[in-house]
Amino acid sequence: MTRNSYAKGSRDPWNYFSQRAPRRDRNRGALLSSGAMPAPPFIPFSVLLGILGILCVALTVFWNQKWRGGFAWDGSAEMFNWHPVLMVTGLVVLYGTAALVYRVPRSWEGSKLPWKMLHAALTLAAFVLAVLGLVAVFEFHNKAGIPNMYSLHSWLGLATVLLFSCQWLVGFASFLLPWAPNWLRALYKPIHVFFGSAILPLAMAASISGINEKLFLSLKNPTPYSQLPAEAWFANILGMLILVFGLLVLWALAMPAWKRPEPDSQETQQPLLQEAS
Amino acid sequence: MTRNSYAKGSRDPWNYFSQRAPRRDRNRGALLSSGAMPAPPFIPFSVLLGILGILCVALTVFWNQKWRGGFAWDGSAEMFNWHPVLMVTGLVVLYGTAALVYRVPRSWEGSKLPWKMLHAALTLAAFVLAVLGLVAVFEFHNKAGIPNMYSLHSWLGLATVLLFSCQWLVGFASFLLPWAPNWLRALYKPIHVFFGSAILPLAMAASISGINEKLFLSLKNPTPYSQLPAEAWFANILGMLILVFGLLVLWALAMPAWKRPEPDSQETQQPLLQEAS
Repeated sequence: MTRNSYAKGSRDPWNYFSQRAPRRDRNRGALLSSGAMPAPPFIPFSVLLGILGILCVALTVFWNQKWRGGFAWDGSAEMFNWHPVLMVTGLVVLYGTAALVYRVPRSWEGSKLPWKMLHAALTLAAFVLAVLGLVAVFEFHNKAGIPNMYSLHSWLGLATVLLFSCQWLVGFASFLLPWAPNWLRALYKPIHVFFGSAILPLAMAASISGINEKLFLSLKNPTPYSQLPAEAWFANILGMLILVFGLLVLWALAMPAWKRPEPDSQETQQPLLQEAS
Repeated sequence: MTRNSYAKGSRDPWNYFSQRAPRRDRNRGALLSSGAMPAPPFIPFSVLLGILGILCVALTVFWNQKWRGGFAWDGSAEMFNWHPVLMVTGLVVLYGTAALVYRVPRSWEGSKLPWKMLHAALTLAAFVLAVLGLVAVFEFHNKAGIPNMYSLHSWLGLATVLLFSCQWLVGFASFLLPWAPNWLRALYKPIHVFFGSAILPLAMAASISGINEKLFLSLKNPTPYSQLPAEAWFANILGMLILVFGLLVLWALAMPAWKRPEPDSQETQQPLLQEAS
């Protein structure tokens, strides 16, 4: 992002910051005192984030394939291995992607409805994967005679999935179905946005505590976790990458320059499904 | 908060929302379409949060006193017990309190300097407790011959303390020392604010994974963690309370009505230490 791009008021989507607020940004002093966070261009950032997300999923698969015996769907320990893969894919990567839908520059023009449907579809996919992830661990526990829901990780994880389910249902009923009155949409929207950002740290904490727990349970003699065998290094790095991915999503969500302009006034006044009918 | 309080434009600090933006709030429709989150009164919320924070610390002390053998500072397992107490007190409760200093209504009037000093003092206290918390676990490990820094919890925890140290140092150099130019303060401030909110979820994830890890390591036969003995129930509930405390702090930080008005323009223009000299 260069000073030139401010001056020109460029509409280049690779240089997103310049596109956001041309009026304010013409005065560099005003920009800096406006509290806007220095914003990198959006599209390269998204590409980087996408690569990081794919890497998180791929490393989770690789970990379980190489060191934990691979995958099955039969109540065995290999069925459990779907649990981290489905949870990281659904509650971290797909969820983070869905949260950023309204930050895509093209979503700011024209009807918001297709973007809402994309947001709902991505979060629904995340929800389905999370439920399958729960099935994977419960089936494994039940077949192996291991109690369910005893660790703090399991409490936090279930709380995260339950909060996420409520968020999806209330979001769907309020913003996609045509019956919610405008005042209710306007009242609920900042709550939905806040919980959208708050559920992600919960998912991050659940992932971290889950990987930590799995390594303590799996890595025993002769090379326990405390000896940091290759698997421990690998899964620790995976955990830190999940944190970096989540923090980058939170950072993108907090970036003033990437927020949809006038996010509330226009959209909350429109009964959105009627727009399509 | 009632409709009456809007209409009267009350300055009652127990009903903070009404005090924040009287012009906008006179029109209820305008308020609702402004995207402002429904805000409870600030002071009762702070009292509730304070009680919850004290409860988090007290329950951490109680857990270690009742089930883990109490406290010492001699490299023993009882020295380790200071680790969760110091970390929860410093990186969660004191840190969360420090983050909310600028949300105190009285901080919006008069000089900002005393509030900056309070913010710096509280975060410095949090930092000192965190360092002592690290000393507690390293000394215990070294004396017992347990390797340091192998678990994902320890990686995340150390990363959190390191990020927090950088945040404190750069914040002190930029906002309290008089030498930083205004443009640098203005540029850094939103980054400081973002990392302030981002380090808290890291501390929450570190606390959760740490409690989970401790329970797996400590609760063995005849009543392992999976049997959910009283200690496991107690510490799991403590972990969930820490999450609730952290989420409430994040919620308070995100609340538009509780943000200092015109947070950037005034303050970043003033060389603040000179103000006092």
